[in-house]
Amino acid sequence: MRVASLRFVSTSSPSGPLVTVERVHTARAVAAELGIDLLVLTPGSDLRYLCGYDAHAMERLTALAVPRRGEPFLVVPRLEAPMVDASPAGGLDLEVLAWDETDDPFALLAATATARLGTAPTRVAVGARTWAEHALGVQRALTGSALELAAPVVDRLRMVKTPAEVAELAAAGAAIDRVHARMGEWLRVGRTEAQVGADIAAAILAEGHVGVDFTIVGSGPNGASPHHELSDRVVEAGDLVVVDIGGETATGYRSDCTRTYAVGREPGADVREWYAVLQEAQAAATAAVRPGVTAEQVDAAARDVITAAGWGEQFIHRTGHGIGLDTHEAPYIVAGNALPLTPGMAFSVEPGIYLAGRCGARIEDIVVCTDDGVVSVNEGPRELVVLAG
Amino acid sequence: MRVASLRFVSTSSPSGPLVTVERVHTARAVAAELGIDLLVLTPGSDLRYLCGYDAHAMERLTALAVPRRGEPFLVVPRLEAPMVDASPAGGLDLEVLAWDETDDPFALLAATATARLGTAPTRVAVGARTWAEHALGVQRALTGSALELAAPVVDRLRMVKTPAEVAELAAAGAAIDRVHARMGEWLRVGRTEAQVGADIAAAILAEGHVGVDFTIVGSGPNGASPHHELSDRVVEAGDLVVVDIGGETATGYRSDCTRTYAVGREPGADVREWYAVLQEAQAAATAAVRPGVTAEQVDAAARDVITAAGWGEQFIHRTGHGIGLDTHEAPYIVAGNALPLTPGMAFSVEPGIYLAGRCGARIEDIVVCTDDGVVSVNEGPRELVVLAG
Repeated sequence: MRVASLRFVSTSSPSGPLVTVERVHTARAVAAELGIDLLVLTPGSDLRYLCGYDAHAMERLTALAVPRRGEPFLVVPRLEAPMVDASPAGGLDLEVLAWDETDDPFALLAATATARLGTAPTRVAVGARTWAEHALGVQRALTGSALELAAPVVDRLRMVKTPAEVAELAAAGAAIDRVHARMGEWLRVGRTEAQVGADIAAAILAEGHVGVDFTIVGSGPNGASPHHELSDRVVEAGDLVVVDIGGETATGYRSDCTRTYAVGREPGADVREWYAVLQEAQAAATAAVRPGVTAEQVDAAARDVITAAGWGEQFIHRTGHGIGLDTHEAPYIVAGNALPLTPGMAFSVEPGIYLAGRCGARIEDIVVCTDDGVVSVNEGPRELVVLAG
Repeated sequence: MRVASLRFVSTSSPSGPLVTVERVHTARAVAAELGIDLLVLTPGSDLRYLCGYDAHAMERLTALAVPRRGEPFLVVPRLEAPMVDASPAGGLDLEVLAWDETDDPFALLAATATARLGTAPTRVAVGARTWAEHALGVQRALTGSALELAAPVVDRLRMVKTPAEVAELAAAGAAIDRVHARMGEWLRVGRTEAQVGADIAAAILAEGHVGVDFTIVGSGPNGASPHHELSDRVVEAGDLVVVDIGGETATGYRSDCTRTYAVGREPGADVREWYAVLQEAQAAATAAVRPGVTAEQVDAAARDVITAAGWGEQFIHRTGHGIGLDTHEAPYIVAGNALPLTPGMAFSVEPGIYLAGRCGARIEDIVVCTDDGVVSVNEGPRELVVLAG
């Protein structure tokens, strides 16, 4: 079950203190450095990160436009202008251009950006998750422009968390750890994955989140499907169950933690053996994290352990993903990503072993690269926990 | 509060019976008719409509590719391939191309589509809500291709609901009507909008939805902000409160209904007077719906009544939006949309009057164009309901 967050329209929005106008100015400077003429960011985490406006994505264009020269501005439907003023963005002195239902907001954005720049922008960068109808609308209004992604600009900012952001991720991690600590209350023989998932979703809200992003309860053979969410399968004695859950806190920062449980019966020696390999791999990847080490080296640290033990073919996904205002964001911990880690980068370390048709196991913590190594925001036991069932 | 739906991975997925392979074949025929070489549809309602796969949107590419010639195919991350097989899409005989974490899924999609077509596609149409990172990835892999939106193809199909789809919208409408009928239990003097909204969200789930899309509780001056959601404002005696709520049913079809309540005190004669104008406008627009009438004529039917009474400046949004697997979809009931209505088109009729700084009111029903007129799926009283408070 995924439960999006309670959406407060209030000047007391808790994301306020985290957002400063410097973020927009830094984005503008990086865009100029990279030769990008105009950034266009639509509702989603890029917009929330840069100006604190947690807008609802819809067909009407809402966009933060950041020309490489001149002042950034917001284009918003007139009927939502009051919501901008009431959000943290209202405190950033950004010019708000409101458009009416029969106006062309793309023409408004294009004309304003062109005036700011003194010439029509050529390189226009849009958010990675900007809807095609908005991206192509901007391109159509800026004849001769070429679209690219704003990720090289916004990811450079968003990847490196400030101490205040790390504190938000730590609070989210502690909240989801409290949910895992209660798993024995819900994960029992005879209950369906859907029933367990509904209880977990309620607990995620009760333990310090304002929204549930996902609840994966992969019991028995469903555990071999890494992104399985919930089904009507009934948990049986002897099942291994992969429980991967996460939510959104009031400030928009995310939790994401996976633990694997054995229900109703001691697992066999064979399971104990390959689970030990998985746990060793997760610890090795975490231990590998420090400034200067690359993302792919962290992936290799986990993969080498699993491959050496003969389970490489059963580890069918990357080792991790960045996390912040999105559950999945840069940096991705995957072969081919030579990005060197720097202090403040936060990401998951989550190797898994999946036996098709039988079962699966995964161990996931969110970790943060520090000046001299790594800290994990998740603290719960990584051993295979046996629940009475 | 928006609560996304419980995501079942199960062959008993209730959306199964609604989805047939004919939809994909019809989309292919319409694309060919419009000269579009390739449709690329990513997770969201287009994908769910065409093949029944309710995929989770993420950075990894999942796409339904429909070349104008040859068989359609799905490109999915290998770790999610089991979820496709378990979804209704698994019953449609679509070829599934799974890619591994270090593969380039865009190259896979481009090569396969080019092979199907016998030549590289030139006109490539992507979903309106396809993420820019996916749309631009497809374009990069298909050198020389030009991107456009698939909306002219998929909207033509999705706009006209089948009797089975109308039945789903009717069930959703009846469910949200039951929530409005209980509003007096929650909407009381001294409670915050957020408290009322949380109760409404629980009731939306209890009354036949699997997800909550939004809960707007606009009390007093907040009612003048049409998309206000929830705040910590305390409801006061004498407040007008705009309650606009909707959710998602098990099959993915949406409810969306607005009623305005007077809490704790009889409204003044002035409010009664302009509310009567609003109610007359909403009835006039509904009565205008029949085959051959244009979307903008329905908008005008509501707007003319409000403007004639002198409140035109206070009706600051279009009259309505289509609804189906998305809460907002084509057709849009707005000036400038000369689309003639046809039987099966379903959309909201929701005029509003907003007095900045004071209050607002809106009345919204979902209606369906029929062979000989219109039916409303919402039945609750449209009068200004006075709650004891």
